Amino acid sequence: MKKVKVYVTLRESILDPQGSAVQGSLHNMGYEEVADVRIGKYLELQIEPKERDMDTLIKEMCEKLLTNTVIEDYRYEVEEAN
Amino acid sequence: MKKVKVYVTLRESILDPQGSAVQGSLHNMGYEEVADVRIGKYLELQIEPKERDMDTLIKEMCEKLLTNTVIEDYRYEVEEAN
Repeated sequence: MKKVKVYVTLRESILDPQGSAVQGSLHNMGYEEVADVRIGKYLELQIEPKERDMDTLIKEMCEKLLTNTVIEDYRYEVEEAN
Repeated sequence: MKKVKVYVTLRESILDPQGSAVQGSLHNMGYEEVADVRIGKYLELQIEPKERDMDTLIKEMCEKLLTNTVIEDYRYEVEEAN
């Protein structure tokens, strides 16, 4: 069994209103050190490999379902599951 | 300037209906290797340190605003921003 960690982030050029709202709240709470906040998704998948190549499998799932590649980037790491 | 990466995940004991829905969709699409999906948040903060200690600052922000510690865990990494 493999544990796959997928990080999905908005592309640099895309505005992040949710991140801006969080940054505004942090400022209002007195955390003025915070210069920017960007919010993305973090997915953990448990995968039982079969004959398919893992990298191909993960990229397909990311591009077909898990991310919107028009506005989002992704990267991933594969680990042995505990 | 520091770049802080915060990973927020649901606690082990908490059901993740969004993750289950994604897993169901992946199965329907033929990705039967996927045994489990858990979905969390990934935040990137740019922080300009002042006199406050970074770890204390980050933990406070996580516990007061960024996470719901009743149902979520978090971990973070601090890097030099590019």
